[in-house]
Amino acid sequence: MYQQPKGTRDFLPQEMTLRNSATEKIKEVFASYGFEPLETPAFETIELLAAKGGGGEAIKNEIYSFKDLAGRELGLRFDLTVPAARVLASNPNLPKPFKRYTIDKVWRYDNPQAGRYREFLQADIDTFGAAGQEAEAECLSAAAGCLEALGIKKFYIRINNRRLLGGILKRYAKEEKAIEAMRVIDKLDKIGEQKVEEQLSGMGLDGKKIMETLLSGEKIGEMLESAEEKEGYVELEALVKACAQYGVQEKIKVDLSLVRGLEYYTGNIYEIVSEEGQELGVQVGSVGGGGRYDNLIKLYGGQETPAAGISLGVERLIEIIKAQKKEQPKTKTTIFMANAGETKAETVKAAQELRKKGISAETDLMGRKLSKQIEYAAAKGIPFFAIIGEKEIREGTVTLRDMKSGKQETIKQEELEGRLK
Amino acid sequence: MYQQPKGTRDFLPQEMTLRNSATEKIKEVFASYGFEPLETPAFETIELLAAKGGGGEAIKNEIYSFKDLAGRELGLRFDLTVPAARVLASNPNLPKPFKRYTIDKVWRYDNPQAGRYREFLQADIDTFGAAGQEAEAECLSAAAGCLEALGIKKFYIRINNRRLLGGILKRYAKEEKAIEAMRVIDKLDKIGEQKVEEQLSGMGLDGKKIMETLLSGEKIGEMLESAEEKEGYVELEALVKACAQYGVQEKIKVDLSLVRGLEYYTGNIYEIVSEEGQELGVQVGSVGGGGRYDNLIKLYGGQETPAAGISLGVERLIEIIKAQKKEQPKTKTTIFMANAGETKAETVKAAQELRKKGISAETDLMGRKLSKQIEYAAAKGIPFFAIIGEKEIREGTVTLRDMKSGKQETIKQEELEGRLK
Repeated sequence: MYQQPKGTRDFLPQEMTLRNSATEKIKEVFASYGFEPLETPAFETIELLAAKGGGGEAIKNEIYSFKDLAGRELGLRFDLTVPAARVLASNPNLPKPFKRYTIDKVWRYDNPQAGRYREFLQADIDTFGAAGQEAEAECLSAAAGCLEALGIKKFYIRINNRRLLGGILKRYAKEEKAIEAMRVIDKLDKIGEQKVEEQLSGMGLDGKKIMETLLSGEKIGEMLESAEEKEGYVELEALVKACAQYGVQEKIKVDLSLVRGLEYYTGNIYEIVSEEGQELGVQVGSVGGGGRYDNLIKLYGGQETPAAGISLGVERLIEIIKAQKKEQPKTKTTIFMANAGETKAETVKAAQELRKKGISAETDLMGRKLSKQIEYAAAKGIPFFAIIGEKEIREGTVTLRDMKSGKQETIKQEELEGRLK
Repeated sequence: MYQQPKGTRDFLPQEMTLRNSATEKIKEVFASYGFEPLETPAFETIELLAAKGGGGEAIKNEIYSFKDLAGRELGLRFDLTVPAARVLASNPNLPKPFKRYTIDKVWRYDNPQAGRYREFLQADIDTFGAAGQEAEAECLSAAAGCLEALGIKKFYIRINNRRLLGGILKRYAKEEKAIEAMRVIDKLDKIGEQKVEEQLSGMGLDGKKIMETLLSGEKIGEMLESAEEKEGYVELEALVKACAQYGVQEKIKVDLSLVRGLEYYTGNIYEIVSEEGQELGVQVGSVGGGGRYDNLIKLYGGQETPAAGISLGVERLIEIIKAQKKEQPKTKTTIFMANAGETKAETVKAAQELRKKGISAETDLMGRKLSKQIEYAAAKGIPFFAIIGEKEIREGTVTLRDMKSGKQETIKQEELEGRLK
């Protein structure tokens, strides 16, 4: 028996129905903000994937890379930001702001574990060409709108600024050590305050003082020192103000200890956390994140182009939806048109009529008797079941059964469409 | 500057809007027949891709194959049928018939040329577990419905039967030579009748007689010889009859010279041809094809499971739609909410209200003056443009401009939603 490759999954219809419903909702929210669809190939050249701002040389240990038959080095994309930045770099004349969404698969050669796969879905929005914090607030508002559309109510968005954080760290450490310190602080969620403090101290830094400063919250405004800190703080303040304009101020939380792993961020950074996931016992960490990355397109050979965006971890959001255990439709098929005896041709004809009107209908393809047709419809979770037998044909009627309540009634054939809509 | 890999494409928003609209229509038609979504990974094990009925060993020269870091041999899928058959083989308890659709990318290491890419989209439906020709007719009816939904009216579906064709060829050639002869006949569209006849004769066969028989059309029913021919003919006749039941009889054309390259077909085979594509100067060949393949799931280690399906060449269909040059929407964004002077906050608030009601709205993110805001909206093809200036705010109105006609009028703010819907 052949298996699917390690760390990948097949999605059977019931699961796909849920997944499609989720991605459709996300797509609608993105589009409502004027984000437009953009698609790029599944694989890119290794040069791009390993470029500065992308993954660096070590990326080859974390992705699927390969040579094509002409010897070109390629790799499956590990995110949706790098390909989008490439598109922007090589199409300098795109009207600005260029606001795009992409909901698509990415691949990472990660160690598979609960909730972590080698092939998974991301949903990204990015605004290119707009430098202000309004563009960022719009992304955060759209992301919040997605979670709400998915029925996830308990969440907040941590925000911080890379320059503010970098400036603060430089009070206590030289440039290189400051970056190293950032990597340690990035582990705060996983290893806790105590361990971070210890590790910072182990580096010869004043761990206690650093953590005190980073956890001082909004008081930081009165304690700014360097120009870098002040500039970062101005951006962070502007984002808070813009979020209020978008009506999402209650959803954001300034958190000076937020780092976000990726190297290409240059300004404000964001991370979405859902308490709902934690309460429901789904170990999901953050369900999305992003930030401003104003250098990436220039690094890829394009014009200087401000950029900011956010990426939703669709797989994690779907885990939360499942854990909520709300009743989900099992199928999009509305009705099974059953034949009783020699009436098959009439059921097919009636089903074809419904399909033309946009109503999804199935008929028997197995030559089954009526009771088996009902069993099949029940197994698939089809909500309505219609019987067209000889009596019904003579009288121009349909016997319609509501599969949930079990109620059955005989109606005129011409009434069927109205009933189902 | 980084390029996308050879033979792949980026799809910018306007193109994606067209592509999404096409795949949405196809999805709706598929779903209206009760086909359910199924998704499988982008890559599979080489064992599967090279398995009999799949590609055979030579497949490695036609696909993207690679090893993961643990040394497992993998390859990007080259079609959507092989992965679906794997799913059926390893999930024997799926309720039957199992009717699935998949609209997704596949990859082939082909020589890139006009209209041919290394990454492209296919739209497949297959019915597993139903042996009769009704299941096949349903697939053909759904495929025809897709083309009609896409606005492609001129097309027909060639049908043939593999056993009938095989039986006829065995009149003139031994088993192995019969298969070789099939390969020659498969080139009929490309090289023409004359050349096929010559090549068959070059093989030591009676090329003239073979071609005469294959082009005899429906008269073949009176000229059947072997049991294999007769069985094949019965299936073909049953398909024609079932197509009449589905109301698609005028769309099908029996053509005994149809071969279809793939090796896994066991019964009726189909190929969709669009004269529209040819008339419009788009060299598209067939726009879809399929057939019955009752052995594949067993070959993959599953239970004996009848199977039939059809695959639409979405890229070619899109080429035809483009060649029709009908006006296509450039964007799904409905309105640009412009500020005039210090009214930015109000435009954002108004836009947020529209978004909540499912209307797609943009606001300025660049601090542009009004004339530049109009230019941007025009460049993006946004159909409506609203101005909320200080006067409008005082009066509770909006100045609404129809971007196509240029007509402008002032309406009450609360009327805006109704106007746009």
